[in-house]
Parts: sequence; C-alpha cells; structure tokens
Amino acid sequence: MDDAKPQPISRFPVPALDELPEDIRARIAAVQEKAGFVPNVFLVLAHRPDEFRAFFAYHDALMEKPGPITKAEREMIVVATSSSNRCQYCVIAHGAILRVRAKNPLIADQVAANYLKADLTPRQKAMLDFAMKVSWRAHEVAEPDFERLRSHGFTDEDAWDIAAISAFFGMSNRMANVTSMRPNDEFYMLGR
Amino acid sequence: MDDAKPQPISRFPVPALDELPEDIRARIAAVQEKAGFVPNVFLVLAHRPDEFRAFFAYHDALMEKPGPITKAEREMIVVATSSSNRCQYCVIAHGAILRVRAKNPLIADQVAANYLKADLTPRQKAMLDFAMKVSWRAHEVAEPDFERLRSHGFTDEDAWDIAAISAFFGMSNRMANVTSMRPNDEFYMLGR
Amino acid sequence: MDDAKPQPISRFPVPALDELPEDIRARIAAVQEKAGFVPNVFLVLAHRPDEFRAFFAYHDALMEKPGPITKAEREMIVVATSSSNRCQYCVIAHGAILRVRAKNPLIADQVAANYLKADLTPRQKAMLDFAMKVSWRAHEVAEPDFERLRSHGFTDEDAWDIAAISAFFGMSNRMANVTSMRPNDEFYMLGR
Amino acid sequence: MDDAKPQPISRFPVPALDELPEDIRARIAAVQEKAGFVPNVFLVLAHRPDEFRAFFAYHDALMEKPGPITKAEREMIVVATSSSNRCQYCVIAHGAILRVRAKNPLIADQVAANYLKADLTPRQKAMLDFAMKVSWRAHEVAEPDFERLRSHGFTDEDAWDIAAISAFFGMSNRMANVTSMRPNDEFYMLGR
Amino acid sequence: MDDAKPQPISRFPVPALDELPEDIRARIAAVQEKAGFVPNVFLVLAHRPDEFRAFFAYHDALMEKPGPITKAEREMIVVATSSSNRCQYCVIAHGAILRVRAKNPLIADQVAANYLKADLTPRQKAMLDFAMKVSWRAHEVAEPDFERLRSHGFTDEDAWDIAAISAFFGMSNRMANVTSMRPNDEFYMLGR
Amino acid sequence: MDDAKPQPISRFPVPALDELPEDIRARIAAVQEKAGFVPNVFLVLAHRPDEFRAFFAYHDALMEKPGPITKAEREMIVVATSSSNRCQYCVIAHGAILRVRAKNPLIADQVAANYLKADLTPRQKAMLDFAMKVSWRAHEVAEPDFERLRSHGFTDEDAWDIAAISAFFGMSNRMANVTSMRPNDEFYMLGR
Repeated sequence: MDDAKPQPISRFPVPALDELPEDIRARIAAVQEKAGFVPNVFLVLAHRPDEFRAFFAYHDALMEKPGPITKAEREMIVVATSSSNRCQYCVIAHGAILRVRAKNPLIADQVAANYLKADLTPRQKAMLDFAMKVSWRAHEVAEPDFERLRSHGFTDEDAWDIAAISAFFGMSNRMANVTSMRPNDEFYMLGR
Repeated sequence: MDDAKPQPISRFPVPALDELPEDIRARIAAVQEKAGFVPNVFLVLAHRPDEFRAFFAYHDALMEKPGPITKAEREMIVVATSSSNRCQYCVIAHGAILRVRAKNPLIADQVAANYLKADLTPRQKAMLDFAMKVSWRAHEVAEPDFERLRSHGFTDEDAWDIAAISAFFGMSNRMANVTSMRPNDEFYMLGR
Repeated sequence: MDDAKPQPISRFPVPALDELPEDIRARIAAVQEKAGFVPNVFLVLAHRPDEFRAFFAYHDALMEKPGPITKAEREMIVVATSSSNRCQYCVIAHGAILRVRAKNPLIADQVAANYLKADLTPRQKAMLDFAMKVSWRAHEVAEPDFERLRSHGFTDEDAWDIAAISAFFGMSNRMANVTSMRPNDEFYMLGR
Repeated sequence: MDDAKPQPISRFPVPALDELPEDIRARIAAVQEKAGFVPNVFLVLAHRPDEFRAFFAYHDALMEKPGPITKAEREMIVVATSSSNRCQYCVIAHGAILRVRAKNPLIADQVAANYLKADLTPRQKAMLDFAMKVSWRAHEVAEPDFERLRSHGFTDEDAWDIAAISAFFGMSNRMANVTSMRPNDEFYMLGR
Repeated sequence: MDDAKPQPISRFPVPALDELPEDIRARIAAVQEKAGFVPNVFLVLAHRPDEFRAFFAYHDALMEKPGPITKAEREMIVVATSSSNRCQYCVIAHGAILRVRAKNPLIADQVAANYLKADLTPRQKAMLDFAMKVSWRAHEVAEPDFERLRSHGFTDEDAWDIAAISAFFGMSNRMANVTSMRPNDEFYMLGR
Repeated sequence: MDDAKPQPISRFPVPALDELPEDIRARIAAVQEKAGFVPNVFLVLAHRPDEFRAFFAYHDALMEKPGPITKAEREMIVVATSSSNRCQYCVIAHGAILRVRAKNPLIADQVAANYLKADLTPRQKAMLDFAMKVSWRAHEVAEPDFERLRSHGFTDEDAWDIAAISAFFGMSNRMANVTSMRPNDEFYMLGR
C-alpha cells in the first residue's frame, strides 16, 4: 500500500495568527486555552474575518444558550446532520465534543454510523428524525412533525432549536467540504 | 373552488416592533425606509434576537461585499438554490430582488423554473452548476470543480463566495420552510 | 455581468404560419384571437402536424371538459407537475393561466415554489399530493390513495382526471425541455 | 402458498363493446382482427372516448410513421421506458411486440431487465440512454446530448422521435399504473 | 436495424469443466442432470473455486431449507430483489425457476415489472415490501417492520429468511452485473 | 438528558457457546484467542449454523487470500461500503480492523465520514469509487470502469476482488441492520 500524505487543513490560504484582527485572535486564544489546541475550523474560516464573526456568533447563539435540550443532545444533532452530509471535519470534531459532553465514549461513533441503531432514548431519536427531515426535506415540514415532537415533550421553541442547529451545521458542512477542512489529529482520541 | 385563507407570516410568534431591542428595530426601520415595506424575514427571525443579528451579519458579509460577482449574479445563486430547496419565501422575495438588480423582468421566473434553460451566459451557468453541487453534493466537491470555474474566469475566492452564498441560503431556506415564512404580497410585482 | 442573449423559441425548426395545414392555422388563429398572442407551444409543436393535432385534442379532452375540478384547480395540477419536472415553459405559461383562472395574482408563484406552503385548501393539497405521486411514483398508486381522495370529496372519476392531467403534462414537460421551448414574454405579467 | 386471484383488467369501469361509439368500436375490431385478441389498453381507455381518440392518434403518429428508427427500435424505447417506470402492462404488452418486430425471442426480457447488458448495438444503447434521460432528467437535456446522438448517426429529427416516444409512453405508463391496467394473458407467449 | 452480436457469458475467463476441482465438477454435473443444461452462473463463478463453494453453500442454506415460506415464494423474493437491482441474469434465470415452482407462467414477468400490481396475496406483498426495504433501506428496519410481518402470519424466523434471501441475492446481483453474466437461452421459455 | 439503555447484541436469539456445533465453537474459540474477545457477529450469526459456515467461508475467501490489494485496503472497501449502507456494526468493527492493519489511528474515521476527503492515494480513491459504484449502481458497471481501474494499476482480477468485497459486505451490512447487530465495546479503542 502506498502511503498518502496527510492533506492540508484547507484548500484556501490559512492566515497566520498574528495577521488576524484582534477580536478574532482573542477568540482563538480563548478556545486554545480551553481545548489545549486550536480547532482548524477557526483557522480556516479566519480567512474571511467578517464571515468568521457571523459564523461564530450564530454558532454560540444556538449551541451555548441554556434550554431543555442538553449540550450533549445538541451535539447529537450536529453529528447526525454532519454524517448525513458526509462532512469529515464536523463528524470527527463534533463527535469528540459529543463524547465529552455525554461522558459516553461510544455514542459519537454510533450516531455517526446510524443514529437509528444508537443507544438513544425514543425522545432523542424523535429529535434526530426531525433534524434529518429539516436537512433533507424541509419543504415538507408541517404540523404533524411538530405534533410528534410535542408527544416527546418538546415545545415548539425546542423544535426551532433543533431545526436551527441542523440548518446551521448544514451550512457549516457545506463550507467544510468545499474548503476540504481537515479535522485536527487531537479530536480522534478526545473523550474516548 | 373553495377559497383558502392566506397563511400567517410564521408558525412561530411574531414580535411587535416596539418590543424589539433597539438595534434590531433600527435595522428594520432602515430596510423599511429603503424598500417601502418590511420583508417578513425580518419579523419572523426577530423572534430570536441573537440569531437575527448573526443571520443578517452573515447575510451582509456575503451579499453586500464588493467583488467580481455582481449583486444580480449573487441573487441568481440565491434563487437557484432556494428553488432547488423548494423555499417559497426565498424564491419569491429574492426573485424580486433579482429582477430589480438585473433590471430584467423575466430572469427570476426563468431561473426559478430551470436555470439551465434561462437567458444566462455560460459563465453564469457554470456558477449555478457549482452552487447546485454545493447544495446537494458538497462532499464530492474537488479540484475539477475549481478548474471548471477557473475556465470561466472565476478565482478560487469567487468559488468561496458562490459556495458560501449557496450554503448560507440553504440554511435560510430550511428555516423559512420550518417557520412557514410567508413572502410579502409586495414582492410579487417588484421589478416586473 | 455579461448579458446573455435571449434564447430562440425552439431548438427545432419553427414553421411559418402560412406553411401550415389549414386546420392548424385555424387553431392558432383562434388562440391568437382569444389571448392576443400565439403561445409558443403552438408554433413549436406545429413542426410535427400529426403530433400537434393529437396533443391538442388530448389537452382539450382533459382541460376543457366540465366537472367538479375547476379550471383553476386543473391549472394548479399543471403548475405543480411542471415545477416538479423543472419545465420552464409550462411553469411560466400555465402559471399565467392559473392566475387568470383563479383570479389570484399570488397563487401561481406559490404553487410553483412549494405547493405545500401555498394558500390552498386541504382538498387542493390532497389533489396535488396525488398528482405528485402519479408523476413520481405511479407504480405505487393503490387503493389507499383513492380512499384519501374520497375523504376530500373526490370521486374515482376525479382521480382519473387528476392523474391524466399530471401524466399528460409530464409528457408535455419532457417535450418542452427537449425542444428548449421558450415561454412568450407576454405570460410573465398576465393576471398579476 | 395461498393463491391470489387474478386482478381485474382495470380499477375503473370497462365499457361493453356495443356501448362504444362507432369509431372506437371500429378501431377495436381492426386491432382484434390483426392480433387475434383485444389488448386491454383499448378496453380500459375506452372508458373515456375523447381521451381514447387522442391517445391512439398520438400513438400512431409516433409509432406508425416511417423513418430511420425501425419499428423494433421504437419498441425498445417503449420497453426500456416502461421498465424504468415499473409499468407492468407496457413492459409485458410492448415486450411481446418487440419480440415480434425484432424477430428475437430474447431481446424484450433483456431490455426490460437492464438494457445496458442487452444484445444491442452501441447506436441502440445511445438511443436508449437518451430515452432514459428524457424520462428522468429532461430538464438537463442540452446540446451535448444531441451531439452524442449525431455521433451514432441520429439526426435531430430522430432525437425528437426518441424523446416523443419516451415522453408519450411515460404518460401511458402513469395511466396504466393508476388504472391498474392488466396485460392480456396472450402477450406472455407472443414471439417467443 | 443493425444486429448486435450476442454477448459472451462473462467478461472474465470461464474455466473449462475438465480444469475444475472435482467437487465443483460434481456440483455442475448434478445441476446439468436435473436442469438439462448448465446455468451460466455455475460456469462464471467457477472462475473462483473458493468463492463458488461459499456462494452455493450459502445459496442452498437459504433456498433449500424447509419452512413456511414456499420455494415459489422464495423465488418471488429473488425476482423482486433482482429486478430492483436491474440484474438481467437473475431476473431471467430466477424468473424461470419461479414459473416452474409456482406452476404459473405469468407470475415471473408480473413480479419483475412491478410486484405491487402482480397476482399476489396481501401476505406475499408484505413479504416483498420487507425484502425491498432490506435491499434499499435496511438501516431503517425496526420493530414496526417485524410487527407488520407478524400481522400476516410471518414469524421473526421467517423475517430472517426473507431478509437473508434479499441480502444474498443483492450480493449475487452485484456480481452478475459486474461480470456481465449472461442468462442461458434455455431460461426464457422454461415454465411458460 | 435521559439515559438510554445499551441495546442487546441482536434482536434474534443468541445461542450459548456450548449449544453450538463443534466446528462453530472451534472457529469462535480461535477468533477469541486471537482478538481477546468474541466479536458479536460470530454470536449473532451462529443462530443459523449453516448460514454461519457459508458466511465465514465466503468472508475468508475474499479477505484472507493473498494479492496486490493489501489487507488494509480491503478493510477500506469494507468501511466505505458499510458507511454508505449505514451499518453501525461493520463501520465500527471493521474501522477497528482497518486502524490495526493500516497502522493508522486516523484512517478509519476519515473513510467512514467521507473517503473522498481521506488521506488516501489516488489509486485507493479509484478503488473506493469502484466499490461505491458496485454498491449503488452495479447495473451501470461497464468497460470504462475497468479501464479506469487499469490506469491505476489494478488488473481485472483485482476488480473482481474489489467488487466481491463490496458486494459481500453489502449483504453483511443488510443482515447486521436487520438483526440490529451491536458492535462490541472493545472495537472502539482498538488501534487508536
């Protein structure tokens, strides 16, 4: 078997940290402090500072807010959506975050392969069914979808959250695939 | 034929303008001054102020920046993407903007129905082919796609723009479909 | 933005009116008198007189006969079918006829973009659901489809009508796409 | 194994021959004289005399006219199209006609199962590739499709013929599936 | 119409009988004695003796064992699966076996074209619905699928049988398509 | 977040080791000795001893034979195929084997998410492109597919190997999904 060389982290130019605007550098420093490394998505998107700012503002509005959907469950939505969009970066990076947040070393690989066979509650499967419908057939979303979510205890505000997370990461998946964004090696072992 | 009642502008609560944070009210006032009415997307998304701010910051970063892809061409990307996602709000609202920006009363309906048969240049069709690939098969985007764009005079930065617009409106289409966002009546005649 | 030249009305030869057989000329004169212009479908299909005659005989048998499905509703079937087949000519031409027949300037663009979000009655949506199943999965049509139509007040004869209109325009959509049939400019503003 | 009862020839009422208009009776008598039995499509569609007349006028315009595409080749288009639409009546009835016209007892079953593996010339496979594109992706038909046909000796008029036969039988397939049209037992052994 | 030459029975080398290992020769001799000819699948797969042995051991374990699903019904699963995978060899060869086992000259062509319109019992259609789900959406198979089978009298062991037959012939279909395996002429008339 | 209970290893009965035929017990003892645990596929399939024997004979014929496609590359085919079929057991179990055989802790997660973005050679990507075509469009496999493989140094015998591995694991994926086969916890960390 020939050996393939590792791919670069982006097919686009990646800015040096010291060339970046102060606010972006600060954001990156903060995540590095917390995670111990800089996830490549920060470096790849920093190529476009205005888009970087909007992207992470949106991300935080959806992923950091409190609410009945736990942080681990939000990551399940990200992993299931990203797997259905075949986004290597997001499956691997958010798979790591899911393992950490759920304190479960098995769940990310299960959800990435087939959430229908994963160790999930019926409520979580209903949540992911809705996320998949938003990703693939949003034009058919209608009242019965909301009713099914309600039968599992989700409010309509929760439905917005699920939809928004799936839609936002659908965008993120597309940009990661177009930029050939490479997941950091550190993600693979996180939370195992 | 029975008559169907017009649908509401959102299946979620729509905030009153005077309940909104000052910056969002200002943004809405500005668009109203310019357009003569408030496009419903502003009212529907204002239900979530933080997401509203990130959404429009992202939108402006992609749609208002200068560059070789004209504003009319950017709207072509929006209309083609939104039609492929069957998003009523975006096809009708951005169809109107496309007519205005292209100063062409026919182009929006043509692109919405089938951009391959529209009055477009080969360069514009290549642009929309790439936007469609980003929307539906981004995981297969690779070097030959960039080469084809280059053969039509697009740089890799232009490719990022096309991809980002298609990916952002893919997200927007999903939220519009989930919220059942209704296009304002005013859009239908704009630019005809 | 470069300007694209308008496309011709057909990729096939278009006969001069005075070369056409008398009956076809008479049919075209009649539609011109009524509409004020000659819709391009008449000119494009006149390239094959025998097929022209059969096509319009079939069209009239389905679209002109009396019955409980109104003429506006039949045009809804045409627009929804044609949009799903991405037929520019039929979406734009029959969209115009739908606006006129429904006396509703908004309905055609709504149905073309996503009939599931259009201002339609539940009965009309059931009608279009059946038309879509005929267009895309006719081999699965079975008793439960007829039962659902009956629950909305449609007889089995109505079901035949819906199916036949969807099937006939499926054929028409394919021919319009293969001939690159161009909608007349007049259609765009009709009924708005 | 329980035995299933044979299905009726249509889920709609089938008229008695002596109730039919004279011209339709004459057409049916002629086909019976020639074939030795009345193919069920004549009886099923006779439920709607005006549609019957238009249907067979269209059929004859496409299938009986002289031209460089042989009658056997036209039946290949019908069988390949009908198989892709999963239309039992048309696969079995036109499979029989194909065997007779091609004087080849094997060809119909081969084309129905997978025309890409059938005993066909490259020219015939190109013809069926185009017919399949018309049936499933007509909105993408463009100049390169015509060029490929020309490289196999087909004129653009031939392309119209191939497209029209595929489009017409696409309609026929849908009506046969909706009516649950049953193929006559006689077809199964014809030409073997 | 040009005549196409018959295709060879495999795109891979086909071993001479006397070059084959003794056990494989014996198996082939036995089938020839019973059928009167050697079905090509034996010759094509004999190119790889170890795979040949495993293939037919698996085949016999599924198709020769006793049980409540009749041998004719097992062949229905094979024909429906093979038709959905567009495998010419398996549709034609197992269509012949189905006719023989069901003592019904019509059933194979019906099932190959569209099992939903074939002369089958509701129980048999439920069996084939499950086989199709296994072939195309096995990752979604879940408790409700087993419940539906039970409502038609199938045990869970029967469900395994149906799934295993559909899965095994899905493999067989792929190998037949990749090798361009040609059905013997003898199959076409068997059981008619 | 509610906690979901781990799923059982099969929805079918799992035999006790001491109830199994001697040859099957021996096979299981051998794998346990080598791996340190009994992969669940052995226990789940042992419910049907004859199918078990044929399955593993086939498996070994494809996966254990020498040849120019390395054992790590064969596992790449398994992981890419299993991921496209959404088979949790095979992605996780064979992902582990791939890591071990390739001595690369990253490759399995990359291939499972999107092999087009994985650290693979062009030859390996061509191998997986062919495996995917066999899995999803085998009826279209033709000479150009073999030519492309040859341009990367694969013989036609190698093409058979790739196809057979993809087809065999397509069967395995379907059985794992139908039985809800659960990957052993041990696989998740193997080779990382």
